[in-house]
Amino acid sequence: MGDATPAPAVTPDPPYVAVIFTSVQVSDDPPGYAAAAAAMEQLASEQPGYLGFESARTAGGAGISVSYWRDEDAARAWKRVADHLVVQRLGRERWYRDYRVRVAIVTREYGPVR
Amino acid sequence: MGDATPAPAVTPDPPYVAVIFTSVQVSDDPPGYAAAAAAMEQLASEQPGYLGFESARTAGGAGISVSYWRDEDAARAWKRVADHLVVQRLGRERWYRDYRVRVAIVTREYGPVR
Repeated sequence: MGDATPAPAVTPDPPYVAVIFTSVQVSDDPPGYAAAAAAMEQLASEQPGYLGFESARTAGGAGISVSYWRDEDAARAWKRVADHLVVQRLGRERWYRDYRVRVAIVTREYGPVR
Repeated sequence: MGDATPAPAVTPDPPYVAVIFTSVQVSDDPPGYAAAAAAMEQLASEQPGYLGFESARTAGGAGISVSYWRDEDAARAWKRVADHLVVQRLGRERWYRDYRVRVAIVTREYGPVR
């Protein structure tokens, strides 16, 4: 996932919505996981209200993907798409030992001036 | 970072607060980064209102750490500690090419039943 997103997402002033997806991989399958993650990011970017995508994955360990959305409706619609695509069809069987999805309203953002 | 947090954090029913820290490393320095991340997680766990910590890092790429807090006050206090410790003293000089900190209110959480 990190290959496709080498930088923090550039997002507008808050508030906006973050969908935090944390997972633990069953086995070390970097090519398959990376390809699925890239497909997920591509799909997210085509949804209404998409603002950005970030992901990182420790080899053999935890993976975290955060997608950013204009509002709750957009985040909810994305969750439905992602559930269907990744978690239900591919995720549980092949890559994830455990996962958690959290939907959150971003209220403040900090970082170096761009 | 993933070494210290091999599973999604176990958090209480929402609402609670997430602090999402996304960074891009200047160079590939896994030992130094991992040690600093472990120290950061340890320090977080000692702060009032701490609920959990998750992190992942793609080799040579993005790092994402998410810490969870009981309320905004606890998240704000943690941000002051983390700013001082990591971003200002160590971060900019040694590991981070770019970073972003987002504070968000988690409103919903999903995952397999535990």
